[in-house]
Amino acid sequence: MLPQDMNFNTRVLTEDVDFSIPRLGKPTIVSSQQDVIFVDDNERISYFADPLINEEIRQSGKPIPAFLAAGPRRMLYHDAAWCRAAIVTCGGLCPGLNDVIKALVNTLFYTYGVDCVYGIRYGYSGLVGGTNIKPIELNPDVVDSIHIAGGSILGSSRGEQSTEEIIKTLDRMKINMLFTIGGDGTQRGAHEIAVAAIKRGLPVSVVGIPKTIDNDLNCMDKTFGFETAVEMAAPIIGCAHNEAKGAFNGIGLVRLMGRDSGFIAAYASLANSVVNFCLIPEVEFELDGPQGFFNALEKRLADKHHAVIVVAEGAGQNLFNSNDLTKDKSGNILHKDIGVFLKERIGSYLKGRGIEHSIKYFDPSYIIRSAAASGNDSIFCLHLAQHAVHAAMAGMTDMVVGNWQGYFTYVPIALATAARRKIDPRGQLWQSVLLTARQNRYWK
Amino acid sequence: MLPQDMNFNTRVLTEDVDFSIPRLGKPTIVSSQQDVIFVDDNERISYFADPLINEEIRQSGKPIPAFLAAGPRRMLYHDAAWCRAAIVTCGGLCPGLNDVIKALVNTLFYTYGVDCVYGIRYGYSGLVGGTNIKPIELNPDVVDSIHIAGGSILGSSRGEQSTEEIIKTLDRMKINMLFTIGGDGTQRGAHEIAVAAIKRGLPVSVVGIPKTIDNDLNCMDKTFGFETAVEMAAPIIGCAHNEAKGAFNGIGLVRLMGRDSGFIAAYASLANSVVNFCLIPEVEFELDGPQGFFNALEKRLADKHHAVIVVAEGAGQNLFNSNDLTKDKSGNILHKDIGVFLKERIGSYLKGRGIEHSIKYFDPSYIIRSAAASGNDSIFCLHLAQHAVHAAMAGMTDMVVGNWQGYFTYVPIALATAARRKIDPRGQLWQSVLLTARQNRYWK
Amino acid sequence: MLPQDMNFNTRVLTEDVDFSIPRLGKPTIVSSQQDVIFVDDNERISYFADPLINEEIRQSGKPIPAFLAAGPRRMLYHDAAWCRAAIVTCGGLCPGLNDVIKALVNTLFYTYGVDCVYGIRYGYSGLVGGTNIKPIELNPDVVDSIHIAGGSILGSSRGEQSTEEIIKTLDRMKINMLFTIGGDGTQRGAHEIAVAAIKRGLPVSVVGIPKTIDNDLNCMDKTFGFETAVEMAAPIIGCAHNEAKGAFNGIGLVRLMGRDSGFIAAYASLANSVVNFCLIPEVEFELDGPQGFFNALEKRLADKHHAVIVVAEGAGQNLFNSNDLTKDKSGNILHKDIGVFLKERIGSYLKGRGIEHSIKYFDPSYIIRSAAASGNDSIFCLHLAQHAVHAAMAGMTDMVVGNWQGYFTYVPIALATAARRKIDPRGQLWQSVLLTARQNRYWK
Amino acid sequence: MLPQDMNFNTRVLTEDVDFSIPRLGKPTIVSSQQDVIFVDDNERISYFADPLINEEIRQSGKPIPAFLAAGPRRMLYHDAAWCRAAIVTCGGLCPGLNDVIKALVNTLFYTYGVDCVYGIRYGYSGLVGGTNIKPIELNPDVVDSIHIAGGSILGSSRGEQSTEEIIKTLDRMKINMLFTIGGDGTQRGAHEIAVAAIKRGLPVSVVGIPKTIDNDLNCMDKTFGFETAVEMAAPIIGCAHNEAKGAFNGIGLVRLMGRDSGFIAAYASLANSVVNFCLIPEVEFELDGPQGFFNALEKRLADKHHAVIVVAEGAGQNLFNSNDLTKDKSGNILHKDIGVFLKERIGSYLKGRGIEHSIKYFDPSYIIRSAAASGNDSIFCLHLAQHAVHAAMAGMTDMVVGNWQGYFTYVPIALATAARRKIDPRGQLWQSVLLTARQNRYWK
Repeated sequence: MLPQDMNFNTRVLTEDVDFSIPRLGKPTIVSSQQDVIFVDDNERISYFADPLINEEIRQSGKPIPAFLAAGPRRMLYHDAAWCRAAIVTCGGLCPGLNDVIKALVNTLFYTYGVDCVYGIRYGYSGLVGGTNIKPIELNPDVVDSIHIAGGSILGSSRGEQSTEEIIKTLDRMKINMLFTIGGDGTQRGAHEIAVAAIKRGLPVSVVGIPKTIDNDLNCMDKTFGFETAVEMAAPIIGCAHNEAKGAFNGIGLVRLMGRDSGFIAAYASLANSVVNFCLIPEVEFELDGPQGFFNALEKRLADKHHAVIVVAEGAGQNLFNSNDLTKDKSGNILHKDIGVFLKERIGSYLKGRGIEHSIKYFDPSYIIRSAAASGNDSIFCLHLAQHAVHAAMAGMTDMVVGNWQGYFTYVPIALATAARRKIDPRGQLWQSVLLTARQNRYWK
Repeated sequence: MLPQDMNFNTRVLTEDVDFSIPRLGKPTIVSSQQDVIFVDDNERISYFADPLINEEIRQSGKPIPAFLAAGPRRMLYHDAAWCRAAIVTCGGLCPGLNDVIKALVNTLFYTYGVDCVYGIRYGYSGLVGGTNIKPIELNPDVVDSIHIAGGSILGSSRGEQSTEEIIKTLDRMKINMLFTIGGDGTQRGAHEIAVAAIKRGLPVSVVGIPKTIDNDLNCMDKTFGFETAVEMAAPIIGCAHNEAKGAFNGIGLVRLMGRDSGFIAAYASLANSVVNFCLIPEVEFELDGPQGFFNALEKRLADKHHAVIVVAEGAGQNLFNSNDLTKDKSGNILHKDIGVFLKERIGSYLKGRGIEHSIKYFDPSYIIRSAAASGNDSIFCLHLAQHAVHAAMAGMTDMVVGNWQGYFTYVPIALATAARRKIDPRGQLWQSVLLTARQNRYWK
Repeated sequence: MLPQDMNFNTRVLTEDVDFSIPRLGKPTIVSSQQDVIFVDDNERISYFADPLINEEIRQSGKPIPAFLAAGPRRMLYHDAAWCRAAIVTCGGLCPGLNDVIKALVNTLFYTYGVDCVYGIRYGYSGLVGGTNIKPIELNPDVVDSIHIAGGSILGSSRGEQSTEEIIKTLDRMKINMLFTIGGDGTQRGAHEIAVAAIKRGLPVSVVGIPKTIDNDLNCMDKTFGFETAVEMAAPIIGCAHNEAKGAFNGIGLVRLMGRDSGFIAAYASLANSVVNFCLIPEVEFELDGPQGFFNALEKRLADKHHAVIVVAEGAGQNLFNSNDLTKDKSGNILHKDIGVFLKERIGSYLKGRGIEHSIKYFDPSYIIRSAAASGNDSIFCLHLAQHAVHAAMAGMTDMVVGNWQGYFTYVPIALATAARRKIDPRGQLWQSVLLTARQNRYWK
Repeated sequence: MLPQDMNFNTRVLTEDVDFSIPRLGKPTIVSSQQDVIFVDDNERISYFADPLINEEIRQSGKPIPAFLAAGPRRMLYHDAAWCRAAIVTCGGLCPGLNDVIKALVNTLFYTYGVDCVYGIRYGYSGLVGGTNIKPIELNPDVVDSIHIAGGSILGSSRGEQSTEEIIKTLDRMKINMLFTIGGDGTQRGAHEIAVAAIKRGLPVSVVGIPKTIDNDLNCMDKTFGFETAVEMAAPIIGCAHNEAKGAFNGIGLVRLMGRDSGFIAAYASLANSVVNFCLIPEVEFELDGPQGFFNALEKRLADKHHAVIVVAEGAGQNLFNSNDLTKDKSGNILHKDIGVFLKERIGSYLKGRGIEHSIKYFDPSYIIRSAAASGNDSIFCLHLAQHAVHAAMAGMTDMVVGNWQGYFTYVPIALATAARRKIDPRGQLWQSVLLTARQNRYWK
């Protein structure tokens, strides 16, 4: 898997960015790991791959923008013998959650000897007093086979909880490492917990493993679950193709996840190259008019008598009135559902044109996000978790594990949540989709 | 795969039944097949397996009820050299359609030497003049790889067409064998075509391959596509389980096909034994009251904090007003959609009871029915098609290929469409579901 | 899945057969099962499906041959409160073992209230004193997820053990139900245990669940694991096809299980119709000469430049010297391995003919037999296990659960192990393989 | 997928390396592509990611080592209207071959308008006169569905052919672009063709798509087929686990591909974490002695009574005599087969120690390499092929498409074939394997 935008020269840093990771204090304990290549804190991964760009920056007198390299540290901050860790999963399901949990537990136990690990139930709500939901005590036996199934053995939930209450719980349970697996809302919450803990004098390493099946986190080439989502979506697009060809002017319409970015839709359209129209949030379109989608679809039907459409859930927001946006518990803007909307509008358009047709609508979101991780995604989860533990043991906090240009990195939460990645319509990924779908033949 | 009701002693024949197959005339051509065990017309398959029942019937002086055994005949009616066959697929998609088409073509070509085979496009509508949709000329090369994908390479459609027009087309195209792949609506249409052809003096063998993914055809232990549907549904139920466990009081609600019978729902609940409630058309239930479903669900949530529900599309029809039933183009009664109804009603019930919860709704119908057939289902399709060709070559008509107690049979259309099979709530299948789901612990 | 030979008129009973099931004594305890259709002991399943055959037998004054119908009995012999059951798996792995174990445990616990169930480790060797291998105490929690993986959680072993020692163990452990999951060697051992127990006055119900992935047990239309084996073999044949086409005169040679019968080879060749030669034990062939296999293969290569061969492990035994047959621990005749033999002989033949070629050899036996059962096979296992428990509770012994013409039956071990089923070369199954593989074009 | 060694700080460049790509001449034709981000020839991807290392190099006065960035060029060398392209696949099968072929054809046709594309049959042998094997004329219709199956529609072969003869063929067929899909032997051959063509004055762009399922090509983070191989290997390791647990002291031994590197073995051991011993070429081991493998295995069996071993085909070469190394047709050193060797040696060791056991041996190599590519691998193949066509159209030659730190690159053949990548035993990948397998508990 390569950087999802795959245009090395479209990566920009619009302003000066702080790549440094907060620390609880000076690490003074020598790691007991042997035969390992430790990573030093001056080892870093350049933000830009092109030496010309870096040379320009150097000549301007600025530091070369670069992420801290992830990996095991020779000197640790926390004493394993006294460590009490907690793991929490937040937001919607995503393939790989159990892999991350398993690898966190195994790395804590086997690599560092931390044998007190709590699994917090149902997201941040399990860290708030008064819910009567006890955490699970985790160890290698408990997690041995959990990766076989999708979902999260801990359960999850959406929504914010009182940072104050969470801090009280961490203090009461004497937890000094909190691993937060969740999206940008979750990590913003983690940032507040990390800051509040430092303020209170609690030595808690708050380390995030970023989770977004949409794969649109800032400063991350890839997030876990995304590859599995693409693998899962491909055969379902094949089903839509079968339904489309199975009827006169048959239309298979597949709605895939992707609120602000169309990565899943675009990748799945490449993975199963039967898609005729791929609609993503990054590329606005109109329904009516000679340049509109309906006209293109009508041409396609006249030509082949069937069509497959993939639409990302956040596409076509310009088609709705802007004054009815709402938010979910996690604070995400709730986009209008383009899927059902499109299904109805296509139907009435074609009916109006007197064109016999048959639309079959697919919304496989829950099937995809609750699946078990593919083998390669499992491995990715393993490494994310290992690096999270390395960072926590070294006393880092207020950060997430990232990956950049093939390497694992440590990224401040502020940076990771500052923006969302999007597909560049002029870039290679989108050009590949256009080549494969050949949608421009009908459209423009 | 065993008889889906699996209670040998619940099979009844309420009245005298005509098992005989109409014929176009006396077969006078010697088959060129060699090293084959031909089947004689007096070879039959008993309707009842129990010798005691058959003895009772014998003593009452009636003939033992039995189906005509399928298989190659020594004497043929049609002369292969002059044959022109047509294949049509009608109704919704079903796994195995392409397998049936492929095997019909290969058996016609290789076993009998019939080399003129038309694939009619888009169901019966392709047999009616004036649509400008040309049939496909089929041969072994064209069908070589079609079984790899689901769907139907011919396309399908719902709805009746004028028998008169169809007869004209068959006459104009000089077709003397029509293979109709479809459900009971399709086969009733085939019956009318067969009768009209005989009246007109056209020697057309009309032979049906029954298609109902619901597996509820009369006098058939199994219909193609059903096994694949069960295989496909099982992991999706697993996804619902993951979503259910992933939230506090999480509910995974899966709607599966089954208008009048719950075979897919029941079998899928056995194939993936994480289901807590399986709701089928054959077992009525109420929502409210101490014996109601809501009360049972509430108990389950209090006990385990998650629940998986599988509901057949035709379940719970007693919960709707009877005066708003409508029909689809094929004449099937359009049941109210219990899935979305249940999702909404559960939500408002639990909200009313002040119970925090999360419902995730799955409707995988199109994903299941458009899938390619499993290996074993493919083999079943192959045999159905071979027997259909054997029957047609022998000059039989107005019939479908069935299977009974493990053998292939020839069944008059009138008998096959006389009723629909259902699950016996006291029978072994439903008892197994109750054992596995253990739903009665909560319910009654 | 239909009877594997699928020729209803080739089934013969060469001599008078005893269908009766031994019993430990008169059942005197009323079953507590409710809302269930009980099965009476006079309910039976005819051996022959054809009413004509049965009429002939009746007229000859003999009883109609028929199996005892399986199912729950109203009157039980064993008192659930005092029952101690044991489960043992013997011989090679087979998909579905864990499904059978799980369903035995659940039926014992939930349907009858038997809560003492031992899982014997490593086959019959775990029933012999002095091995220091403790049985596992089984209950619904322990077996909850075991069906997800292939293999057997109990472990298995080949080979006989002293019946005397086994009886001592059963007596010492106060076991009154022994469920033996294994092939005909295992069931012959079970027969000896049943007989010895009766002689000793021990009221032990010995009930077998027959296990043969080859699907060749007498008086059984199907054995568990077979369907899964066919599903697993199909894509591997596809791999062989890819390798064959990937080289000039490429040959993909796949060895599948089937010592005495070619059911897996034949069915897999139908499930993935790219096979050019299917070689089975039932159809002898020569390598050399104008009618030989080498000549046929050479013609095929000249025609298409690639070939796919599927060979059952027991095929071509006539090509070996008969005086070097050996037996395995279970007493099965160890056939010479036709796979490697054929690979080498083909290679040297083609080399001798100066024909450039490339042979790729596949032996997926362990991959197939250790796989988890498919959804439909799981359901079959569930029902086998339920019927085994019904029989044991009713005090039956020295028997196995069978299935015949779509119904579950109870079969005396002596009858089940009296012979092995084989493919009839003139029957429908083999004719379908010849049609699909079209091997006769090259061969004869 | 991340760089397979994943230790950013273990990457070294021991000497000065030439990253420049030979060109046939100055590109003078303006590309007709629109709305695309073209890539300039001064855009490059740094070899080292760490800014500190690059700064040291800069200070030493040397140029920053960096690959040419792949991508579409604004100026082209070849005139599409006159182009005649050829595609050849060499060496063993690998998942994704057909994806690469399809995407080459589609990019040539649709992106550039090149409509004459030959598919050379059976590797380089199809480019040599006198074999009577005609190339296939490729176009988008021909390749439309080829990616669904594994293998190569062109066929492949091993071994060198006369460069002189190949040049003659290219000249006679007026081919000006040759796409060579193959391993380092193939690309060395491509280098000779490129050099000879230039010498002869033939303007042939020779562009390689590197193929090694072992994933060990120099200067490539990933090669196509590798991810699929890991996905395919994981469940087979699960089968070995089932077989191991299914017998007393059961041992499942899986041999995976990897002649000089253990990437597949290591990754598959992470993807299915039931492996107890992972043996790779990079880590030498002894069989006997207190530090030997046999001792470790014996401890493991005593502890758990089963063991799963994964061994890369090139592991343990120190255990063989060095004087019996041979080479295959492609010039690869033919390693002794550690799989069968280990199986036999383990058996005799345990027998000698009087330890009852059961070994099951798995060699899934052909099943893995002939599989169709996974969805994500398909996408990777698509991009490799697009970049190959971009390079060829721009007049580059004697090069392969690579990828480095997440970006696609153009790499001189000499550099790509200069060495093979290996696993660093002190690096993160191997440490993760040790953590997961926990083999050191038994071993050292």
